[in-house]
Amino acid sequence: MGDVPELDLSVGVVDLTADLVNIASESLHEDDIADAVERALSALPHLTVHRDGHSIVAATSLGRSERVVIAGHLDTVPENGNLPARLDGETLWGLGTCDMKGGVAVALKLAAELGAPVRDVTYVFYEAEEIAAEYNGLGRIAREHPEWLEGDFAILMEPSNAGVEAGCQGTMRADIRTSGERSHSARWWMGSNAIHKLGAALRTLDDYAPREVPIDGLVYREGLNAVGIRGGVSGNVIPDEAVLTVNFRFAPDRSEDDALAHLREVFAGYDLTVTDSAPGALPGLARPAAAAFIEAVGGQVGPKFGWTDVAKFTLLGIPAVNYGPGDPSFAHKADEHVPVAHLRSVHERLTRWLTP
Amino acid sequence: MGDVPELDLSVGVVDLTADLVNIASESLHEDDIADAVERALSALPHLTVHRDGHSIVAATSLGRSERVVIAGHLDTVPENGNLPARLDGETLWGLGTCDMKGGVAVALKLAAELGAPVRDVTYVFYEAEEIAAEYNGLGRIAREHPEWLEGDFAILMEPSNAGVEAGCQGTMRADIRTSGERSHSARWWMGSNAIHKLGAALRTLDDYAPREVPIDGLVYREGLNAVGIRGGVSGNVIPDEAVLTVNFRFAPDRSEDDALAHLREVFAGYDLTVTDSAPGALPGLARPAAAAFIEAVGGQVGPKFGWTDVAKFTLLGIPAVNYGPGDPSFAHKADEHVPVAHLRSVHERLTRWLTP
Repeated sequence: MGDVPELDLSVGVVDLTADLVNIASESLHEDDIADAVERALSALPHLTVHRDGHSIVAATSLGRSERVVIAGHLDTVPENGNLPARLDGETLWGLGTCDMKGGVAVALKLAAELGAPVRDVTYVFYEAEEIAAEYNGLGRIAREHPEWLEGDFAILMEPSNAGVEAGCQGTMRADIRTSGERSHSARWWMGSNAIHKLGAALRTLDDYAPREVPIDGLVYREGLNAVGIRGGVSGNVIPDEAVLTVNFRFAPDRSEDDALAHLREVFAGYDLTVTDSAPGALPGLARPAAAAFIEAVGGQVGPKFGWTDVAKFTLLGIPAVNYGPGDPSFAHKADEHVPVAHLRSVHERLTRWLTP
Repeated sequence: MGDVPELDLSVGVVDLTADLVNIASESLHEDDIADAVERALSALPHLTVHRDGHSIVAATSLGRSERVVIAGHLDTVPENGNLPARLDGETLWGLGTCDMKGGVAVALKLAAELGAPVRDVTYVFYEAEEIAAEYNGLGRIAREHPEWLEGDFAILMEPSNAGVEAGCQGTMRADIRTSGERSHSARWWMGSNAIHKLGAALRTLDDYAPREVPIDGLVYREGLNAVGIRGGVSGNVIPDEAVLTVNFRFAPDRSEDDALAHLREVFAGYDLTVTDSAPGALPGLARPAAAAFIEAVGGQVGPKFGWTDVAKFTLLGIPAVNYGPGDPSFAHKADEHVPVAHLRSVHERLTRWLTP
């Protein structure tokens, strides 16, 4: 164990983002950053701090009529030649600047600066969002300490170009497996070619007409795509197995069960196995807490196409939106970066919303 | 270096096959077996023996009007729990029994027993047939000592169910590569899916009507098949590249150039790269030396669908057939075996052909 890195929450939001980036925190290696966040928040007398694994929850207890949850994950994907953070004019570059230490920095600034917000606030900084769902810190808190997440409205600070993106689409991955019979490719008629049998499935994908689904004035956009294909034994063998992996992104008006039923219908007659699935989240913009937030930040609202942890709040019955600095297209890329303007804008708007 | 294993060529053909099987000789590890074969042949006064690497060539010099070449490879694929050799009733089991130490044993028996055959004979025992073409011992001799292979007719003792299989089909492998543009699968419309683009190529394969080609009274049977497919970046990325590997088995009336032109026509518009190619061999049954052999062994003649080293003799202008013990379907399999009846039949017929 090294020393706990110091985090000075009094620096500006850009410097704080850089400081967070410079505490490496690849998934499953969040010890240092969680220690630093816990120590910094514990020094603030207006917050009550809890810890679960490498996730930190800090809450005000002012008896306000409304409680909001502001959440962000502490982990990043693996380094990709993009550390340490580097400020170049109006852009901060580096691993996690966009996904999502910029959002974490904003939340930490709010936690430090707002001793008496007009709404009670629960800040959640959690581990292991970038890897398999079983490790997800927010999921673990929802299972083991759901009372820590109670609230009327939640903001997940995933990058959303500093605009509000509501709800999220669900995602389901499935393997479509064909089988045949091996033979030497010189005597191919003795066998049955599993790869050839995927041809019709690929054609189905090509012909697929995805829905565009209006909900609460937003238009979600479904998609059904191949994300993997594999097959083959060796260069002179008719292959007896081939697998096409598809990813179905579905609008939040479908449940996971509905989504699976749809996939089974589209690929009728194929052996289909779901390998991964996560529900969508309805935007819930009609709920009062959400409406007040959107009015306060004055932003246009768009639909969230990607899947995010807002779905976890939806499952807890809490309306939630994505609202954070950074363009999500640059997440997980070597040239990951966040515009300084996004950091300042999100920080200022949330401050205004929570300040009398 | 261990001691050179002794090979006693006076034992029966079944025992000799077993003795050869029990000298492990995976490709690139033919030292022991080549040493043993060289020593055994060098003890025979009627033969002149050459060595190149781990390939041995032994020839009679009787001044006959005709010279025949009898060839077999000494290497095997890797062991697969099928050593040592095991005789069970009328079947000899073990690695290489079929491909092709049974054939090698017959050739060694002929070399030892026929001091004055009616045709001059050149026996060729070569290394590294089972791996990449660059290592092939027969190919190396053809390049570096082509005079050792001079002859009017060649018999390659590849397993052919103890019947004559004439010529061989050519083989060509090609990669058909599609490209697209990556994007997150939640925003799939920002990208272009390379896997989807393979759909039409698979359909082409499904619709392909292969030729059946009569040559010298034999019917060759072409085939165009997928032997591999791959694509995919990760479960949430629209893939920007996909590769379909096809194997074209073509009748010996096409050259490799013709075969490639045909593939380019079939997959017009696709990026196509040949990764591997070998020419077919015309059966050449009309040539006098071939006709005499076929009459002598009294066998039905069939076409060889698979590719074999007979093509190397064809390139040298020597008509060649496949004729050896063993069912080629069991080559490279854990349950590789050879019927004792095949060993005896091939041994007896070749003896009869070469004896006054």
